Amino acid sequence: MAKRPQGLVLVHTGEGKGKSTSAFGLALRAVGQGLRVFLIQFIKGTWKTGEAAAARRLAPELEIRVGLGDGFTWITQNPDQDRLTSREIWKIAREAVFSKKYNMVIMDEINVAMSLGHLDPEEVIAALRERDPALHVVLTGRGAPQALIDYADLVSEVRSIKHPYDRGIKAQMGIEF
Amino acid sequence: MAKRPQGLVLVHTGEGKGKSTSAFGLALRAVGQGLRVFLIQFIKGTWKTGEAAAARRLAPELEIRVGLGDGFTWITQNPDQDRLTSREIWKIAREAVFSKKYNMVIMDEINVAMSLGHLDPEEVIAALRERDPALHVVLTGRGAPQALIDYADLVSEVRSIKHPYDRGIKAQMGIEF
Repeated sequence: MAKRPQGLVLVHTGEGKGKSTSAFGLALRAVGQGLRVFLIQFIKGTWKTGEAAAARRLAPELEIRVGLGDGFTWITQNPDQDRLTSREIWKIAREAVFSKKYNMVIMDEINVAMSLGHLDPEEVIAALRERDPALHVVLTGRGAPQALIDYADLVSEVRSIKHPYDRGIKAQMGIEF
Repeated sequence: MAKRPQGLVLVHTGEGKGKSTSAFGLALRAVGQGLRVFLIQFIKGTWKTGEAAAARRLAPELEIRVGLGDGFTWITQNPDQDRLTSREIWKIAREAVFSKKYNMVIMDEINVAMSLGHLDPEEVIAALRERDPALHVVLTGRGAPQALIDYADLVSEVRSIKHPYDRGIKAQMGIEF
């Protein structure tokens, strides 16, 4: 067993709630250990006001990057545009992986970009293979491709057993946003 | 629809990793919204050093209570003692519910105490029914009793698809502790 910490590849997938929330929890735990964490969002609107505000309390160890900024609209009616946007965000995520600045890189909702065909899973996996072996990488979102599941060290699936929307309850501040 | 926020009862259960991590993520989001959160642990050792350290960065909005303190050893060889301990922690959790000091109360690993028979689910559900209707309550841990699932607004199950221990990889700082 190497003396250096062994970086893990974690995948949070499934249809249920809590995948991004869990990634935020992982960031919280890692920051508490003094690790430096980079968290980038592939789909705008998954993070809500509360998360961004609280995440700032974890600076400077935690750096967050909300995709391509406020002007970014995901899932347009234009697949070419979506593919271009996905690739631009991936470029930033990939740079973070190879920057040697972080102990953990969280790519929130990247699985969705892959499952929609906007990003090639093999390209993502190639970057994971080439990364510093001590770096932890977390990839969230429904529809994680099988090749990524095969490559990952830890894969969790969140299943929704019951959801308040089923009962006509509106989104609540602090829970859903 | 009432103008006051409607408190939700959220249950995180299942065998997979990430239930407590997700609860920490929920606390992070809620604090970011300016909500006051009380988080109490029913099983010692589920929270690791990193989480407790980072959680302090979210004070004063987030208050954490690690069960009955450092001297608390869970799952002794003495079921009577475990039952007593569970009930003492429940007493603190229940007081938090009715204290009117919080917008969200997170009972981490309480489902385990119920599934082991140390705590009566009906007593827990009775407290949930009697709470301020605006209060959010989050109950985590494997083995959530059916009566709680029936009562809850949102239930997520975390399934483990793959775990690094299967491959002989040791626990890594910042991920597992």
